[in-house]
Amino acid sequence: MAYPEKFSGFQSPSADKWLEFDKNSWDPRPFGDYDVDLKIECCGVCASDMHTISGDWGGCPYPLAVGHEIVGKVLKVGPKVTLAKVGQRVGVGAQVYSCGECRQCKNDNETYCKHMIDTYGAKYLDTGYTTQGGYSSHARIHEYWVYPIPDGIPSSDAAPMLCAGITVYSPLKRFGAGPGKKVGIVGIGGLGHYGVMFAKALGAEVWAISRSRAKEADAMKMGADGFIATGEEGWDTAHKMTFDLIVNTANSFDGFELNRYLSLLDVHGRWNSVGLPGGSGVIIKNQDFIENGCFIGTTHLGSRREMLEMFELVAAKGIKSWVEEIPISRAGLQKAMEKLQKSSVRYRSCMVGYEEAFGA
Amino acid sequence: MAYPEKFSGFQSPSADKWLEFDKNSWDPRPFGDYDVDLKIECCGVCASDMHTISGDWGGCPYPLAVGHEIVGKVLKVGPKVTLAKVGQRVGVGAQVYSCGECRQCKNDNETYCKHMIDTYGAKYLDTGYTTQGGYSSHARIHEYWVYPIPDGIPSSDAAPMLCAGITVYSPLKRFGAGPGKKVGIVGIGGLGHYGVMFAKALGAEVWAISRSRAKEADAMKMGADGFIATGEEGWDTAHKMTFDLIVNTANSFDGFELNRYLSLLDVHGRWNSVGLPGGSGVIIKNQDFIENGCFIGTTHLGSRREMLEMFELVAAKGIKSWVEEIPISRAGLQKAMEKLQKSSVRYRSCMVGYEEAFGA
Repeated sequence: MAYPEKFSGFQSPSADKWLEFDKNSWDPRPFGDYDVDLKIECCGVCASDMHTISGDWGGCPYPLAVGHEIVGKVLKVGPKVTLAKVGQRVGVGAQVYSCGECRQCKNDNETYCKHMIDTYGAKYLDTGYTTQGGYSSHARIHEYWVYPIPDGIPSSDAAPMLCAGITVYSPLKRFGAGPGKKVGIVGIGGLGHYGVMFAKALGAEVWAISRSRAKEADAMKMGADGFIATGEEGWDTAHKMTFDLIVNTANSFDGFELNRYLSLLDVHGRWNSVGLPGGSGVIIKNQDFIENGCFIGTTHLGSRREMLEMFELVAAKGIKSWVEEIPISRAGLQKAMEKLQKSSVRYRSCMVGYEEAFGA
Repeated sequence: MAYPEKFSGFQSPSADKWLEFDKNSWDPRPFGDYDVDLKIECCGVCASDMHTISGDWGGCPYPLAVGHEIVGKVLKVGPKVTLAKVGQRVGVGAQVYSCGECRQCKNDNETYCKHMIDTYGAKYLDTGYTTQGGYSSHARIHEYWVYPIPDGIPSSDAAPMLCAGITVYSPLKRFGAGPGKKVGIVGIGGLGHYGVMFAKALGAEVWAISRSRAKEADAMKMGADGFIATGEEGWDTAHKMTFDLIVNTANSFDGFELNRYLSLLDVHGRWNSVGLPGGSGVIIKNQDFIENGCFIGTTHLGSRREMLEMFELVAAKGIKSWVEEIPISRAGLQKAMEKLQKSSVRYRSCMVGYEEAFGA
């Protein structure tokens, strides 16, 4: 059996065999009035995929297909769907449901809804179905979480923007990255490379902040106005109290001198972390914030409105993802995970070749 | 010798004898073109006074007179002074200098100026004089840091507003306390009682948040719309993701479950701490902030503009400090410090009787 009775994909069978990626089929959940079915064309590779199936973040329901940077073509729409059309190219990100009724949902903050459902490894409360991600043939998603992609953007460029891109776009936009503002992006990886490009596209002065100068040339090509290497002595001196916003994409707190980073911020500037390192955290005191009255926090993805806005900006400014395509297969996914573990991705991997893997 | 050659006051002689409060005289710094001399009438008692002279916050230059909530009458003004007049009643808070030239000074953020000088225990760079606080006969202050006090406000009501008041007024104003906003004030003490009254006067819905219900009746009289006792089981349940802003005035992190407090904030809500507890701080992880995308930070005092605004609001709304007057003397200051140590002040002490202590 195949679509629409069955979806298939590459599932991790268990925590200890998370790199096995068995090709399985499963029943999709019942097709609802607001559902959109898509045939997946490609899917970006997010560090969350690895953290989830390897058990880094605690348990997950196995077998599980991960992947939440999905681009595909619409095959079928429910009778009440108005936001997507059959044949349209669309994207799906890291979230596939919110209640639509709460204060957060009604204020462009649906990614903070208490009833949110992640794109993979989460359960629909009504049907009990466990969500399966984009290393799969098809996806069945409520129309609100399906975004039309402008024609000018190649699919494998668009895919990683659906999580990595929106995760930095939202705080940049919400916290004022624009003309006259000085913005720092800590960590030049999948998220950080979008951070540099988007902050620049929004009109801010952008500084890439990394441990060494290994990525300096790349960061300047992405549009950085300057580069700070935190491995160098006195790296913070010239920049004290000059940044309006710093988006921290770093994936680890190891050896992290948070105070020195915070000292870069102007009064009430924000240090916004979008990565979710494991480990035991950092110790803070109120005194750490008093010299500049700065604030630290975290944001989570971005709203539908921001997702559409981001794609408009990308199309208008011709922003190009730095993406390495890898054909999807067990070996291809293993390669993608290995590159993540080695931090050797420049700067995002995208699984492609879905027709070869799943049929036309 | 007396004024203007000598100022006198109650100085702590050393860290181990910090409660001695010796009555001494000293040379004031040379009178400058922008200086205002005032004869002090009263001075509020801030926990900072105790932390400083007892050595809690590290060393301070002894002998030292503390006190930075000063109200007095102007005796003399320098030839270039335009902001104060002889005979006028004025206040001085916790800061007496900033450069006036930097980005922070030019943006109403002079309390974050790198060249700031505290009202006591700090050195003027030009003359090397150590600043002496308001447990003294007189003060000589640059006019920018001298604030006219509206007639309707009694001096001992106004005094504690110059540090405790402005410290909560500034973040309430800057971070949007007003109609339609739900604001929490953690810790109902000197700062907290102003927090409740000012947030209410600004039009917000205000909740007092305290460990027990001991201060509930007082908080309701101050204008609180509700009271949360964090010693009660399930205290946070009914308020999750409903607060726009919480101003934390607590002076200790002991037994503090920061996560539960943060869970009260709506999306991107702020947890703004204005106390400076000693101790080793708290551990945070990015995950602590992700459910609501909240931010934590600290603010420092408030600008001159905000100080004048605060006094206008106090005069317009008839806000009354809850203040206990104590005549100034060695014994009076010892009593004031003892009340601070026991947390038995309801809700601010103010040293008065300066004519008896220092002459008319």
